[in-house]
Amino acid sequence: MLLQPERTRGDPQITLSLSLSTPITPNQWRQRSLLHLSAFLRRAPPLRLLLPLSLPPLLLASRHLRVSSCAHGSDGDRIVARPSSELRRGIRENSSKVEDEKLLSLRRLFARPDVGIDAYIVPSQDAHQSEYIAECLRRRAYLSGFTGSAGTAVVTKDKAALWTDGRYFLQAEKELSRDWTLMRSGTRGVPTTSEWLNDILPPGARIGIDPFLFSFDAAEELKQEISKKNHELILLKEFNLVDEIWNDSRPDPPSKPTRVHDIKYAGADVVSKLSYLRSHLGESGCTSIVVSMLDEVAWLLNMRGSDVPHSPVFYGYLIVEPYRATLFVDTKKVTKEVLNHLTNAGVELKPYESVLAEIESLALKGAKLWLDTSSVNAAIVSVFRSACERYSSQLNNNSTNQSIHHGGPDAVYQVSPVALAKAVKNNAEIEGMKNAHLRDAAALVEFWCWLEKEIDNNVALTELDVADALLEFRQKQEGFIETSFNTISGYGANGAIIHYRPIPGDCSLVENKNLFLLDSGAQYVDGTTDITRTVHFGEPSKWQKECFTRVLQGHIAIDEVIFPERTPGFVLDVLARSSLWKVGLDYRHGTGHGVGAALNVHEGPQSISFRFGNLTALQKGMIVSNEPGYYEDNSFGIRIENLLLVIEANVPNAYGGIEYLGFEKLTFVPIQTKLVELSLMSPGEIKWLNDYHGQVWEKVSPLLNGEALDWLSKNTRPI
Amino acid sequence: MLLQPERTRGDPQITLSLSLSTPITPNQWRQRSLLHLSAFLRRAPPLRLLLPLSLPPLLLASRHLRVSSCAHGSDGDRIVARPSSELRRGIRENSSKVEDEKLLSLRRLFARPDVGIDAYIVPSQDAHQSEYIAECLRRRAYLSGFTGSAGTAVVTKDKAALWTDGRYFLQAEKELSRDWTLMRSGTRGVPTTSEWLNDILPPGARIGIDPFLFSFDAAEELKQEISKKNHELILLKEFNLVDEIWNDSRPDPPSKPTRVHDIKYAGADVVSKLSYLRSHLGESGCTSIVVSMLDEVAWLLNMRGSDVPHSPVFYGYLIVEPYRATLFVDTKKVTKEVLNHLTNAGVELKPYESVLAEIESLALKGAKLWLDTSSVNAAIVSVFRSACERYSSQLNNNSTNQSIHHGGPDAVYQVSPVALAKAVKNNAEIEGMKNAHLRDAAALVEFWCWLEKEIDNNVALTELDVADALLEFRQKQEGFIETSFNTISGYGANGAIIHYRPIPGDCSLVENKNLFLLDSGAQYVDGTTDITRTVHFGEPSKWQKECFTRVLQGHIAIDEVIFPERTPGFVLDVLARSSLWKVGLDYRHGTGHGVGAALNVHEGPQSISFRFGNLTALQKGMIVSNEPGYYEDNSFGIRIENLLLVIEANVPNAYGGIEYLGFEKLTFVPIQTKLVELSLMSPGEIKWLNDYHGQVWEKVSPLLNGEALDWLSKNTRPI
Repeated sequence: MLLQPERTRGDPQITLSLSLSTPITPNQWRQRSLLHLSAFLRRAPPLRLLLPLSLPPLLLASRHLRVSSCAHGSDGDRIVARPSSELRRGIRENSSKVEDEKLLSLRRLFARPDVGIDAYIVPSQDAHQSEYIAECLRRRAYLSGFTGSAGTAVVTKDKAALWTDGRYFLQAEKELSRDWTLMRSGTRGVPTTSEWLNDILPPGARIGIDPFLFSFDAAEELKQEISKKNHELILLKEFNLVDEIWNDSRPDPPSKPTRVHDIKYAGADVVSKLSYLRSHLGESGCTSIVVSMLDEVAWLLNMRGSDVPHSPVFYGYLIVEPYRATLFVDTKKVTKEVLNHLTNAGVELKPYESVLAEIESLALKGAKLWLDTSSVNAAIVSVFRSACERYSSQLNNNSTNQSIHHGGPDAVYQVSPVALAKAVKNNAEIEGMKNAHLRDAAALVEFWCWLEKEIDNNVALTELDVADALLEFRQKQEGFIETSFNTISGYGANGAIIHYRPIPGDCSLVENKNLFLLDSGAQYVDGTTDITRTVHFGEPSKWQKECFTRVLQGHIAIDEVIFPERTPGFVLDVLARSSLWKVGLDYRHGTGHGVGAALNVHEGPQSISFRFGNLTALQKGMIVSNEPGYYEDNSFGIRIENLLLVIEANVPNAYGGIEYLGFEKLTFVPIQTKLVELSLMSPGEIKWLNDYHGQVWEKVSPLLNGEALDWLSKNTRPI
Repeated sequence: MLLQPERTRGDPQITLSLSLSTPITPNQWRQRSLLHLSAFLRRAPPLRLLLPLSLPPLLLASRHLRVSSCAHGSDGDRIVARPSSELRRGIRENSSKVEDEKLLSLRRLFARPDVGIDAYIVPSQDAHQSEYIAECLRRRAYLSGFTGSAGTAVVTKDKAALWTDGRYFLQAEKELSRDWTLMRSGTRGVPTTSEWLNDILPPGARIGIDPFLFSFDAAEELKQEISKKNHELILLKEFNLVDEIWNDSRPDPPSKPTRVHDIKYAGADVVSKLSYLRSHLGESGCTSIVVSMLDEVAWLLNMRGSDVPHSPVFYGYLIVEPYRATLFVDTKKVTKEVLNHLTNAGVELKPYESVLAEIESLALKGAKLWLDTSSVNAAIVSVFRSACERYSSQLNNNSTNQSIHHGGPDAVYQVSPVALAKAVKNNAEIEGMKNAHLRDAAALVEFWCWLEKEIDNNVALTELDVADALLEFRQKQEGFIETSFNTISGYGANGAIIHYRPIPGDCSLVENKNLFLLDSGAQYVDGTTDITRTVHFGEPSKWQKECFTRVLQGHIAIDEVIFPERTPGFVLDVLARSSLWKVGLDYRHGTGHGVGAALNVHEGPQSISFRFGNLTALQKGMIVSNEPGYYEDNSFGIRIENLLLVIEANVPNAYGGIEYLGFEKLTFVPIQTKLVELSLMSPGEIKWLNDYHGQVWEKVSPLLNGEALDWLSKNTRPI
């Protein structure tokens, strides 16, 4: 192995690039090369080094170093990332021979007369901006091989690149073939997709997209950016090029029936939800709205489905007008019960595919259409706009003598009013969430009790075995439907991969020598859960205890905070980090996301994050996660996550005549006290932990018996 | 006294308006009417009430009430404030007879042929956007009678209104005559100046301003706003209408000599500062820059003056070109020493008034002029722009056959690079600040020791006597120049007036029955100080101790925080408030402002505030105040303020390969431990207080002897 310092353009800092003499597996690479590197750097003088993001363990392995992450390699005027394959295999070939059959097939289509493009962008999204999408729509994953939830693939006639964020750098490195260049988004020197396209394509290129897969805003931004180099954005709405090469191996579209979400869990009926939406339409002078986010459709119609993994939603668009509401859905999924339910609420059905035709006819009817262009796709918006233009020109031709055209169709671009209404839970939704969390807690206690015993008995369990066992415990609970996301079961170094997903045949054993991070959740008929616990089955090191305790202190600070109404979540974020900051530690993700009630595990508009762009105030009835963490790459990961409900705080004063808000915990599962470094904890923090465990015992013990009850008793004892 | 609930337009909430049967003095009003109101409200059912901002004591007097502040009264379509005189005197006259001679004189000028306006706006500013301005330039105070530092007067042919912010509501109510309407800025329903003008003037009115007194940005915004009603903004740059009516009573312009700011305090010489500025000019492709902020001129030239109270600056503009720098100043103020100093640095002198002529000639020379339009006044910018236009049209006339004009003059609008350079202190400036703070601390200890004895001996001292005494103690210190702002000496209820200034004949005695808030600072030859302490000379109530302790906890949280580089100040603000928020308390001002080194006590660009618009990161070498507070209107005020220097934190890790920053205290004066409710304090907080007092003793005791030394010893004992 060779270490070769190399200067980056215009930057006095040093990059290290690795090349290895023989190809090794990713695991070998991680273990061997890092040991060597780490030993080397310990002997090196104090330096400021720029290293690829995959190497931060060195940062902590050699404390006297300041290490900055960066992209490496340079290509023309820009610093861009080198194919991860180079790093991984230690081979730096300049071969231009492409082995990837999918890329070859895709590029063949570029020249087809009805296509005619120089590049094609394949995002992760479906037509509804969903986080989890049906298998048959995972076009970016199929094309690139990278299976993480976030990423964009861009293919030109001779290059293929994939952008993903820090959560997925390691996973993408593993999964991408050598024909792909990994673009580490958010890393210094890495261009955006449009910067890259402007950089590598000659001016005036034609860049194709499937307009269903881009929100209108995203497509417009892209169009704007690439116009700097006179590139043209080509909306190929008749076909998706990846679908064309997918052929036989493509999974069938989802077809399971939808169901009615019981009013006892929904809390408000469809008629009143639609009338709320119509009152907003009226106020804004609109005659119709297109709702395209799947969770918004499901929430408005009190319906649930199973079209995508982890979220109880179904593919559909909803168009609401003052005296009409139409659901565009594969009618095969609509059972008799659902049909009755919809008919009673005055909701008509039309085929999913007919939505564009309906949009056109809305324009011809002269609709004022409310479009949330941050979520509604570019296909819908562009069809409506063309139809409006056609209508106007017809009107001009037919009535050349009239100077005023009343009632022409028009698009009104506004944020959908549904997201906020959905985020603020009603009493029935809160009740359902609380109940679901208690059953989930019972399952988790049984699981932890079982796992502890298995590890004590030296049973060999992989991270995947553990996740499967957890699923079994949850399945026993009433109302369980499925997991609310892929279980993140990360032992040791894998825990440092923020969105780690154990893969069969390539995952660690869970043992008693390092930390084990388990982030999981479930969809129940009455609620959605999301919980992370980090434990050590043996003896944690002093350093691990310190890190865990600082994460816990951040968790407690968020949990206990009281704040005035109208406070955006980002204001609170610092509370989750300040104990880590005190010793120069931090974590690279937000502190909290919104959670749906028996809906998506990630929902907006609120969040708690260091990114201060989201000005949405935390409001009574909203649910957010509280999940600070700390990750030492190639060593261990820590995260402690509960879900919290925003409530009115019980405060003796009300300065400013306003309401003060706070949080109520929804999650009741013990936090491993073995990992708590008591000397760092304030008496208030110790009291918080003991009070929490008191509540856990009180709420969850009635649902347990036998060993699990004993385990709970032992693990909720005051410290 | 009558209490009459009244509905506001389009709002279901209730306003209370007060009318009193006989005129009473403000003090009587405050005491009597509030007692009655408070008793009434305690009997009232729980209500959400809208009350004038002057009444918040009720909020806390009757805890079961939710009280929102608002403007009251309604005028046409808008809710506007009623003249404060109505409230104060309890008389609601509709008399349109104007008694105010100044208003009459000003309005007479409106019709003059060279004026021809329908309204005139008189801001607080001078031509340099200074916070403190020379007496002869306090036009708004002269015209309106309101002497607070912030406010805008607007006079139409039949109305006169004054806008000020929450800090000054009570003071403005006291000072405005009945011909003025007080506009409580930032309060619900109160229009901005331009909204008000658009509301009350018939379309197409001519609104006059003195363009020297508006930054170009502010003038443009105003022009934009009033154009909605087709009003025209008239720049009257040849004369100021208030000056015309001021006549004989107007103070003389400042004429004291300027001085050289010694290099041992400045740390960098003028040549290197100018060369820094020129390198920025070069990078941005500009040929000249106008520096108009007085502290920027003083900092760049290592000069100080005494033209305005509290800030060691002098009136001047500086124009810097690649091989030339010109100071526009009243040359009578330039001593021989200063002249030498400037000549050595290659700085020429021109008369202050000739700046506009120079701006014109810059345009004719084809300058690319860097203008920070957020600070440079509209007179300068508009003169440059007109000259540029003239130049272009001349060029067009002279060379009609040439299609390309190289080298025409141009304005480049960018933030001045001086503010940030000035905010980041060099070692000499830091050293000077530290030394000045120790001498200041010695003066304060002697003062507090003296005051405590006087109060114990029942000596009758007014708030003003106390402020005067403090000045005497400070004057004994080496290098003392003047106060850095008007001392805020507020006993009891006066402490709740955030920018209270005791007025001779109308201020309280300082006694041992309530809290005493003292916010003061000094200009020394080597540094600027700003410190607030709150004390009780008798027995504080349990409630006062709780409030004080929560403010102290916020102060400690800011003092102790460690944060990653690139963190804007607003991220930290929540730390100062969260202990207050826990019991539903808050304060209505920012937590920290920048402080100059032997310069302005308020400087940008950094701040620590709940307003999250300021994205400036806190950087090593910046100085900020740390001053959380709590104010119970008509009862007491609490504020604890130290100045802090941003330093690199000594942390064992550096996650993300970046620097972590923290604060070092500059202020070393005891905090009264009698006011600390120990049961609320964590061990860490108690340790902070004891450590701080240990440092105070160590650093300040060498400068003291006798009683003051004993006092210090007693007041720095560990608790």
